[in-house]
Amino acid sequence: MTGNLHRPTIGVFDSGVGGLTVLRAIARLAPNANYLFFGDTARLPYGTKSQEFVARYSSAAARFLAERGIDLLVIGCNTASALALYDIKSAVSIPVIGVIEPGADAAAAISQSREAVVFATEATCASHAYQRALARRGFATHEKACPLLVPLVEEGWIDTPVTEQVARIYTIEALRTASSNVDVLVLGCTHYPLLRPLLRRVVPQRIEIVDSAEATACSLLQFLRGHDLTAGAPTYKFFVTDSVEKFRKQAPVFLGLDVELSTLEDVQRADLDATR
Amino acid sequence: MTGNLHRPTIGVFDSGVGGLTVLRAIARLAPNANYLFFGDTARLPYGTKSQEFVARYSSAAARFLAERGIDLLVIGCNTASALALYDIKSAVSIPVIGVIEPGADAAAAISQSREAVVFATEATCASHAYQRALARRGFATHEKACPLLVPLVEEGWIDTPVTEQVARIYTIEALRTASSNVDVLVLGCTHYPLLRPLLRRVVPQRIEIVDSAEATACSLLQFLRGHDLTAGAPTYKFFVTDSVEKFRKQAPVFLGLDVELSTLEDVQRADLDATR
Repeated sequence: MTGNLHRPTIGVFDSGVGGLTVLRAIARLAPNANYLFFGDTARLPYGTKSQEFVARYSSAAARFLAERGIDLLVIGCNTASALALYDIKSAVSIPVIGVIEPGADAAAAISQSREAVVFATEATCASHAYQRALARRGFATHEKACPLLVPLVEEGWIDTPVTEQVARIYTIEALRTASSNVDVLVLGCTHYPLLRPLLRRVVPQRIEIVDSAEATACSLLQFLRGHDLTAGAPTYKFFVTDSVEKFRKQAPVFLGLDVELSTLEDVQRADLDATR
Repeated sequence: MTGNLHRPTIGVFDSGVGGLTVLRAIARLAPNANYLFFGDTARLPYGTKSQEFVARYSSAAARFLAERGIDLLVIGCNTASALALYDIKSAVSIPVIGVIEPGADAAAAISQSREAVVFATEATCASHAYQRALARRGFATHEKACPLLVPLVEEGWIDTPVTEQVARIYTIEALRTASSNVDVLVLGCTHYPLLRPLLRRVVPQRIEIVDSAEATACSLLQFLRGHDLTAGAPTYKFFVTDSVEKFRKQAPVFLGLDVELSTLEDVQRADLDATR
């Protein structure tokens, strides 16, 4: 896409609220755009489900957003990016960006040793999507499923001794099979950036922590080059498949303090069962 | 139901695998029956979802089982029993038994002080179904949402220091508003019986722990009086909405060691989207 084009409408999709960390990173880098966010809160979490269901639900969500005129779709969900990128690309005719490739790029940009650890959901780890993406960049990768981190974040236990203990156990287990050369940890789930300060204390200092949200925002700018995305104010529309009230309550912690409260004015229920 | 009737077919429904603790208790007490179990594993967990979705999913599952000729349906899921009992009863024409009333009966049978604590999911607590059921039996009730216990059990951290710490935090928070007269703790989620030995160490000794599975089995016997349920061997059929393999892997820990491996021979995928 080149030339002086219209102000784009960008779709961001997640199984729930975690993808709001991706939306936040994108909107900060590209404020001159309209954003439609879709959170499949009635069927979350995807991280423990099978490929077939993740593909089915994600494709339905992608079609829902495509029908509302988005120019580009960002899959702000590692599990859907890992398990269903091709299904989603087949379901819609607009460009689709996942978070795995940008995450792997971000790791490649800072690693010297080419040995990485990835923390992700059970389903993302089982797919080995990060392992393959990082192998193409010359990495040996140690994937570690961390299924308790999402519920801990959702419970709001962002910085508690229990969460630290869980993070410590996962870190020890992840590093057990690794060499001492590991110099990068990829946060392969959009919930995990909220645990970054805690993880920074737990993970050895030689290991840099990267999350894919900012790398994904850079990918998006490349895709939409020609648009002037940097000046202007974003607009937001949110669609969720379960309770609007619950989403309004959970969203601010993921969107962060720099997003104004008016951001969450337009939240609607979407019935994906009926639109599939 | 009275008289010397045919060998009954009993449906047990849960959002996932937790209801297997109920199936186990029932089949132990009433082995002379055919059991159909339905686990809505593609949409679990229900405990964090809204009433509307729990009612919609549960009713679809109830219809699925009713179409397969069950004589009676046991809702082996506290969240569905709390939020959707009337929706489920409206959806099918067979008798339906939830776990809340039997659980309240079990508490009433052993409590002297009539002051109880209930551990349950977020959705079950928000519905106050246990509070109401226990109030009808003269109880003051302290409900405590314990959203981390399900993921801890599913992760297999049945008896770890982290789980003990989480249980301790929940127990302290639950008892903070209670008087020292509390003498019963109701496990209001079918995952929690697996944590019973750990909870027994954490919860003050004066407090008895009850789970509703056995009480539900007694209710069922009353409903099916006239049938001789006690002599014979049960048959099992399982339906799940997500991966059969994953269910086969998770089920044994919930069914317990006294259930033979052949029990899990007949597990089928059910597409609830198509049958709704």
